[in-house]
Amino acid sequence: MTDTKLEGAMKGLINSFHKYSTKTEGWDELSLQELTQMIKKEYPTFLSTCALGNPDGFIKGLFDNNKGQNGQVDFKGFMTIMGQITNIYHKRSHNDKTCDDRK
Amino acid sequence: MTDTKLEGAMKGLINSFHKYSTKTEGWDELSLQELTQMIKKEYPTFLSTCALGNPDGFIKGLFDNNKGQNGQVDFKGFMTIMGQITNIYHKRSHNDKTCDDRK
Repeated sequence: MTDTKLEGAMKGLINSFHKYSTKTEGWDELSLQELTQMIKKEYPTFLSTCALGNPDGFIKGLFDNNKGQNGQVDFKGFMTIMGQITNIYHKRSHNDKTCDDRK
Repeated sequence: MTDTKLEGAMKGLINSFHKYSTKTEGWDELSLQELTQMIKKEYPTFLSTCALGNPDGFIKGLFDNNKGQNGQVDFKGFMTIMGQITNIYHKRSHNDKTCDDRK
């Protein structure tokens, strides 16, 4: 069975996570450095819109809010961050130009 | 600036949500019927793998766990469901063949 567009998008997210999570130890988790590399590379438009000139601080905020007890972000935490970014884009699709994901 | 692959994937999710959410009233929220239509159409592989022969019941479970006080699923709830599905796919990428998104 061929993947639908959304099934392909989901696999793209998983592949991106693994691409960055395997750069250092903790091969199935992201360090702050790995998350920073990923978001700068994969979400440049989002960062230039919402990071207020401080991309490293903005990404550290996302990281700190979703890291586990071992100080890394696992896939569930990663998906929470992806959800937050997507929620902000959804609001912007309705001309709410804030950059937070509160309702 | 051109969208990256992940920025495009994120917009694809938003467009799919709107495509189904606007079918009936509550134009920025999904009814059970709309969520059912969407998941059956967009995630056929996932359903055939994890719904244990009862796709309607499986989708109703996702819906009931994420609906708001007005009985519909808003975009945040939708992203939680998308996260749950993606978490299960991520586990399966590591040969954990269960269909729940617990760690």
